[in-house]
Amino acid sequence: MASMAKTTKNIALICPGGRISEDLATNLGEIAADHCGDRAALFFHPQCFEDAGHFAGSDAARSAAFLEVANNPDIDAVWFARGGYGAVRLFDDSFANLNAAARDKVFFGYSDAGVILARLDAMGFEKLVHGPIAIDLTRKGGAAAIRRALDYLVFDKRGGVEPTAEKHPCVAFNLTVLAHIIGMDWAPDFAGRIVMLEDLGEYLYRSDRAMAAVLLNEKMRRAAGVMLGRVSDIPENDRPFGADAEEIAQYWCKRADIPYLGRADIGHDADNKIVPFRRPQRS
Amino acid sequence: MASMAKTTKNIALICPGGRISEDLATNLGEIAADHCGDRAALFFHPQCFEDAGHFAGSDAARSAAFLEVANNPDIDAVWFARGGYGAVRLFDDSFANLNAAARDKVFFGYSDAGVILARLDAMGFEKLVHGPIAIDLTRKGGAAAIRRALDYLVFDKRGGVEPTAEKHPCVAFNLTVLAHIIGMDWAPDFAGRIVMLEDLGEYLYRSDRAMAAVLLNEKMRRAAGVMLGRVSDIPENDRPFGADAEEIAQYWCKRADIPYLGRADIGHDADNKIVPFRRPQRS
Repeated sequence: MASMAKTTKNIALICPGGRISEDLATNLGEIAADHCGDRAALFFHPQCFEDAGHFAGSDAARSAAFLEVANNPDIDAVWFARGGYGAVRLFDDSFANLNAAARDKVFFGYSDAGVILARLDAMGFEKLVHGPIAIDLTRKGGAAAIRRALDYLVFDKRGGVEPTAEKHPCVAFNLTVLAHIIGMDWAPDFAGRIVMLEDLGEYLYRSDRAMAAVLLNEKMRRAAGVMLGRVSDIPENDRPFGADAEEIAQYWCKRADIPYLGRADIGHDADNKIVPFRRPQRS
Repeated sequence: MASMAKTTKNIALICPGGRISEDLATNLGEIAADHCGDRAALFFHPQCFEDAGHFAGSDAARSAAFLEVANNPDIDAVWFARGGYGAVRLFDDSFANLNAAARDKVFFGYSDAGVILARLDAMGFEKLVHGPIAIDLTRKGGAAAIRRALDYLVFDKRGGVEPTAEKHPCVAFNLTVLAHIIGMDWAPDFAGRIVMLEDLGEYLYRSDRAMAAVLLNEKMRRAAGVMLGRVSDIPENDRPFGADAEEIAQYWCKRADIPYLGRADIGHDADNKIVPFRRPQRS
């Protein structure tokens, strides 16, 4: 048992935004058991299934669940089970009261959970990872995305890591989410890092506006560059925008005098690759 | 003729975002002639009717039109004919090259044109006004909104000014627009001012996210308070948010420790009142 305890990763799942169903949790548990055997122990915090309007429980419930699993020294990783708006409402105390065990832990997710990754990055946390989450099981090919996440979380396998992120200090965010937090104290320092951006379900004029908000923020001025992930499910507007998502990224990078470095292999889809947040080496 | 020149207000209309139709311009011209006689001379810049994808002409065309009318000493006021995304794309040179005549001029509009008002406010311009625009003629009761704007622009009548804005230093913005520019250098200094916010056609979770982006920005910390205009045409989400627009404003004001001061009489509608941007007296 002692040796098993050492090789089993304890992974806690919480929902900082929207809730998940019990069925989804069951499906995820089965995939994890099949893929990892006794190397992974998944713990779904009951908060995942709470229900309060738009959210998986009240701000207090979500904040408490986050702090509880983050500070628990027996937990190796906090895996955000779902995005869906809400992480920005977590209480400030839940960040101020994080302990040393939290700092030593992996935090894994994307989309709205990027708010938490950003905030922890600004606090100097080191084990922050953009990657697939439980709700991705509802997508075609979602099981493969989950196995990619488990390979990283449980077996430390790097095969699912985004190629550029393997070589350079990178961060990855949903464009709309980052546009709304980049003006806050919580936003990361992007100096020397490549910023990967993806988006889903937004009119192109909105992506253009969000790209302006991100690229013209002073925190971006020392970024190593921008890479564009997939921008998918773009609704048709009453008139065509006149530029596609990559042209929009190139336009704002040029105006902000920040290098545009091409496409990143991330997005709101089953192919979404893993981006461990890394910082540039101090010289 | 000399005395008439002195009493006629020359008003130039441009479209920094989306275009307007010739018919709309004709309708507006007729209302202005009927309401103001020879006290107002309206000049629709040809750029208003240009067409380039989402925009009323290319960025270059819109930027040139803005600079041309702003710098023309014969023009008393620049009246933005329409919102619709695009003002954030105006070239930086069009602001850097503004002259003394521009600084002495009224700039009048709202919605997406708030980007220009914000930028000019950050540059110390003094005659910036939130109020109805040509496209409001497409709303029920829109002619009354236009006459309200003309009363202010042409006859210096204060009847259409928002009551609190008559008494206190205020600014007014579309919430979504402000959320996207507050992190830029262009955003106004809100110190000592009441910030009025309105929005249109956004899911409540988006208004909540935008309110967070605005209220948690350090530029808001010394604001005198927030007032909420109308938040209209809210689409129904698959699940109710759990709070209404005013509760959302109160929530974020409380978290940011900024006074919530009640409702403002502004919005994307025919009743939208006039808010001249004012600064607090220096003591």
